[in-house]
Order: sequence, then structure tokens, then C-alpha cells
Amino acid sequence: MSDLELGDTIDSAAAVANPLAAVFSRDLSFRLESGRCFGPIKIAYKTFGTLNREKSNAVLVFPTLTATPQVAAETVDGKQYPGWWQEIVGRGKAIDTDKFFVICADHFGGCYGSSGPSSINPDTEKEFGLSFPGFFIQDMANVAIEFLQNIGIRKLHAVVGASIGGLLALEMIALQKGIAENALVLGASHRVSAQYLALNYIARQAIMLDTAWNDGDYYGNVFPSEGLSIARQIGHISYLNQLLLEEKFGRQPVGGRLRNHVSLGMQYQVESYLEHQGKKFCKRFDPNSYIYLSKAIDTFDLEKEFGSIAGAFTGAETKFNFISISSDNLFLPRDTKELHAQLQACGASSTFNEIMSPKGHDGLFLETEKIEAIIRKALWK
Amino acid sequence: MSDLELGDTIDSAAAVANPLAAVFSRDLSFRLESGRCFGPIKIAYKTFGTLNREKSNAVLVFPTLTATPQVAAETVDGKQYPGWWQEIVGRGKAIDTDKFFVICADHFGGCYGSSGPSSINPDTEKEFGLSFPGFFIQDMANVAIEFLQNIGIRKLHAVVGASIGGLLALEMIALQKGIAENALVLGASHRVSAQYLALNYIARQAIMLDTAWNDGDYYGNVFPSEGLSIARQIGHISYLNQLLLEEKFGRQPVGGRLRNHVSLGMQYQVESYLEHQGKKFCKRFDPNSYIYLSKAIDTFDLEKEFGSIAGAFTGAETKFNFISISSDNLFLPRDTKELHAQLQACGASSTFNEIMSPKGHDGLFLETEKIEAIIRKALWK
Repeated sequence: MSDLELGDTIDSAAAVANPLAAVFSRDLSFRLESGRCFGPIKIAYKTFGTLNREKSNAVLVFPTLTATPQVAAETVDGKQYPGWWQEIVGRGKAIDTDKFFVICADHFGGCYGSSGPSSINPDTEKEFGLSFPGFFIQDMANVAIEFLQNIGIRKLHAVVGASIGGLLALEMIALQKGIAENALVLGASHRVSAQYLALNYIARQAIMLDTAWNDGDYYGNVFPSEGLSIARQIGHISYLNQLLLEEKFGRQPVGGRLRNHVSLGMQYQVESYLEHQGKKFCKRFDPNSYIYLSKAIDTFDLEKEFGSIAGAFTGAETKFNFISISSDNLFLPRDTKELHAQLQACGASSTFNEIMSPKGHDGLFLETEKIEAIIRKALWK
Repeated sequence: MSDLELGDTIDSAAAVANPLAAVFSRDLSFRLESGRCFGPIKIAYKTFGTLNREKSNAVLVFPTLTATPQVAAETVDGKQYPGWWQEIVGRGKAIDTDKFFVICADHFGGCYGSSGPSSINPDTEKEFGLSFPGFFIQDMANVAIEFLQNIGIRKLHAVVGASIGGLLALEMIALQKGIAENALVLGASHRVSAQYLALNYIARQAIMLDTAWNDGDYYGNVFPSEGLSIARQIGHISYLNQLLLEEKFGRQPVGGRLRNHVSLGMQYQVESYLEHQGKKFCKRFDPNSYIYLSKAIDTFDLEKEFGSIAGAFTGAETKFNFISISSDNLFLPRDTKELHAQLQACGASSTFNEIMSPKGHDGLFLETEKIEAIIRKALWK
């Protein structure tokens, strides 16, 4: 995917080929951390490869914040569906679908078919909007655990995730010790930083400032595209390393000359790039899902939840593999390293890999060769 | 000012004690880079200290993006007026007002009394709004040169500026060789980076998304405070280093407990800090000025304007002093260092000082002791 624009990997097309759906908690039995009981819960998902007789080859891949269940590429009825992580997941790839039964499900609270703010409330037959219950990363991981049980998976060969996907992988293991033999956590750590909190806060304000947002009640009306676009652009700034931004765009103007032209409009390619990313995002993501998911990310803090890293993971018997990008500003390698060290200190098997790269958080999807090599060597031996 | 909150130094109170005003170009004779002629131009300013008989002790301090002409502290009619750089400028300070005649003027396009989008268009007797002409850093520097002539200053002992103030200092010297014997440029370089362009673009979009902004025509109506607040918060993220943000706020909640509390509202101190900064800013700054000034910053590129650094500064005979903060993300020390090296290569006198500090761009106003020592030692000997 090296010919794609920066950020395009995470921004992969929203199209999902024939997703499956698991529906559970029809009796409203799912108790959220807030105390509220919720149901029915629908989780949209895809599988790739075949579950073996021993049910020992299942690999759950959590999506990034805005990725779909279409983690691997497919051709269905003559139509090609790209996978958002197709260099890593597929036939003969590092996460080999000839060998593993790969599962990828839309987040609880997402907008690719799972229950979320844009799904229909059966009581009112209208979209939930802000009446969708608030939730934490714990709730998302608990839903994922119940989803796996619902489709007959009790034990994973591995749980894999990048960014919020990595937080979910960690949370799932902490909540259900022994659920996964291996964990592959990319660009994530045991808590969300003050800078990430700040960026999420600003992004949410931008969505809410858009009058079309209308307190979350915009379905069937004008889509709050301007607010969501600004939110996405703030995201992009945090995904990209500034030196890479400089190298890629520098001060290149959109058209030809700049001098003697004074305009409040767009003048530089970096502006055009951001606008393009913002607009594209509006075609595939729900603003309310963005708000809810970013709030869930904010509260993630394993030490606060379990008292300590040891408290979270003692007894898990999972082999942890961490991958950090040296220039990642969203999840600093030093924080992931700290988690790794604490896991080792409490006797867990843990490996930490730092990829030296100027590509920032986005490097998780751009440094494919290096990441593939680490996964092949460390996780699947 | 070490007891102030982060960012508060740049956010100093808007009150200015008895500002003076220079009015020129009454005959609409001021030709902007765009080709448009404009006038009359009013520049609000303050002076501190006394001009000596030889008129050889004048020091012009350009404000930062949003600072007032009140660069030094004063007590007038029993009321205390803090200066936004009072640790550096004042009696006995590094820029000693007992020795120097310090001038600080509101930017052309600003909102503290100079001609700008919020000032009254004499033709219509209403605020200019978006009918104020677009302008570049060159225009702002040319206005400053004409302003100095207007108040009888032909030669400066020094021109001083941080951030946009530093860009203006450089531009002024390039446009009028020999205007300043010394230049003190803090946290600035010869061009604005792609990341800064990106941040400015997002900030402007936030202002314009606020329906109260009303295409810049909001004077006397609802103030577009939400959009301006978001713009300011984006600014703060870029002024602060993320490690400092972590140290200062971390994941401290606003109230007590966070768990079992799900809310779309504010939950963390870093959010509260940003909101506070945003609200405070709305009391003292004009959204249209923010848009215009940020556009002017965007276009700053001395190499493009003059062909090369040598082209910009050959013949200036100014002694340059640069100060960078090692963790500054808005103007990277490496860029300032490059400018310094190019100045030396073309025979100019130039000194580069990098202050090792984790305080980011804001470090320019927080590392006072170190900066004071550099100014005393390097500039005023």
C-alpha cells in the first residue's frame, strides 16, 4: 500500500463484503459498567480462513478506531473488497488465513453494522443518537468476549490490535484471564495520555459545534460533515509525524503562484490533503460513533481499573508482544516500554519491539515490512 | 510568573494603559502586497523609557500572535497593568527601560487599537469584518517601518520578537536593510512549517464553523466564542510539549471519581484547562483578527520571497541572535539553526542559542531565567 496517500491505510473504504451478524442479550441482560442493562446487542463481523476441529486457531483482530470488519481483502461476486490490513492479514501473509481462523468485528458503538448510536432502537424504531448508552473500553471488551462465546469461540490463539484495538486486546485479557495464548499489541499502552485526552476533547467540540449535529439527532437530515471533518483533521495531525508532513507536503501551494494572492480559502497542499481526508471520512463514519468511541478511549487506564499492571494481568498466561513506532506521538514508546517492563516484573512473557521510523502513529500501517517480520518471527513460531 | 498556569504568559490580560496612536496613510497611499491601496492606517502602541538625544536607544518589540502593546508592567492612576513580557522588559530587566526606549505596537490587522477587521471603516462607519484587505507578513513589517518613521525613529538599536514577532523582525530587516543594529529572534525561523500550516487551517475552519461567525459579520451580535475557543485550544496543543502536558495534568479527573460515570461532558483536568483557556481568550481577541493573522503567518517564507537567505539579508549589517527551545514543535530548533548557518555562510554576524527544556513553544515565556541571561550576555554587551 506504499502508493497510497499517508493516512489512507486507516482510511480504507467502508465497503464490507457480506458481513455476518451475531445478536445476543435479547433479554436486555448485558450489564454495562455504568450499571445500565442493554440489549439486544448486534455485532457485525467477518471471518477469514477455517476454524480447525480443535478450535485452536482462532485469531481475533480488533479494528482501529474507524476501521471496518473487512481486515483482509476479498473478491465477492466479481467485486474486489480491499482489506484495511491486507498486507498483514490474508493467504500466506504474517497473519495467514490459510492457517488461522481470523475474526474481525465492528466495535460495540461503531457504525459498520454493530449496535451503536446510528443503529435502530427497537423501542422507538428510530436511530438511538445520544440515547445510546455511554460505555467504556471495558464494555467494548466485555461485548467482544460475549460475542466470541456467541459464535462458539472460548479460547483464542491470539488477540491482535493497533491503537484502540490494542487497548481492547489488553482489556480483554485483563477481564478474562486465559482467553488468549498470544497478544499482539501495536501502538498502544496501559493508559491514554493527557495529549490524547486533549485532542479527543477538541475533536468532540468541533463535531458538536456543527449546528447540523443537532444534539446527535441528524439521521435523515443534514449530516454534520463540517464538524466531523475538523475532528478527523485533528486526528490526522496526531497520527502523522511533523517531519513526515514536512517531507510530504512542505509549503507546496495548491495551484501555482501564491504571492499577490490573498484569500481566506485554501492555499497549500497540506490544507488540501486535510480537507480531502475530512471529506472522505464523512462518507464512511458516524459523528456520534466518533464521540462515543473517543469518550471510551479517554477513560482507558488499566492501573486505575485493576490497581496495578500486576493486578490486571497476573494469571493471564498470555505471551505479550508489543510493537511501537519510535516517532508515535499518540502512544509514546516509553509508555509501552513501561507496560512491557511491568509485565516482565510480574513474571509474564513479554517482548517489546520499537521500530525506528519517522512515520508517527501512522507508521503502524506504513512500516509493513518491518511489522510483518516481527509478527512472523515473534508471534507465530 | 512561575505561579501562573501554563500558557498564561502569552494569555496576559488585554488591558493596556493609555495607549498612544499613530495615524498615517490618510491619503490611502499605503500599497499592500496584493496591490490594493489602503488608508488611513492607525497603529496603537506603547513606549517605555526615554528616547535619547541621538535617537540611538530605540528597541522595537513585536508582540506574539495575540499579545498587546503592554509589553512591560506599569501602574497608572493607581491601577496595575501587568506586561506580557514583564520579566524581560522593564526597569533593570534584560531589556532595560532605564537604558532603552522600548516601543511595542499592536499588529496591523490586530484588535488592540490598530487598524484591523474589528476597527471602523470610515467609509461605512461600520466594522470592516471581511472587507478588511488581506495582508502578508511583508505588509505587517512595511506598516511597522512606516509607523516607526511616523513617530520619528529611523534606526533601531534592536528589533525583538518571539514566534510571529520573530518572523516580523526578520521580515523588517530584510525589507529595510540597516534598520536595526541587533535582532533578537526567539522561536522563529525563515519559514512556517507544514505542521503549522495544518494547525492554522484547522483553527480557521473551527472559527468559520461557528454560525455566530456569520461570514465575519458578528460585531454587535452574538460573538462566535465556541469557534474561537476551539481555535485557541488547537493553538495551546501546539504551544505545549506533550510530556509537559502529561506532567502537569496527566489523567487527573475534574471532580473525584470517574468510574461508573458516563458523560459526554468534561471529565479531565486537561479538558477543563483547555476550556478555561478558550473562554479566557474570547474575552480579549477578535476571531477575524485571528483568521487574518494566521493567514499572514502561513505565507511567510523568506527564501521564496527573496530567492535565498543571502538575498534576504545581504547588506543588512545586523547582528542576529536566535533563541530556540529544544522541544519547540511549532518552530523546530533545526530550522532556526539552518537559518543561523546560512546567515553565517553569507558573512552575517549570528549567534544561535538552544535552550534545553521540555516546555515546548511556551518555553519562550517560561524559561525566563535562561532567556534573560542570554539577552544580557549576547545582545546588550
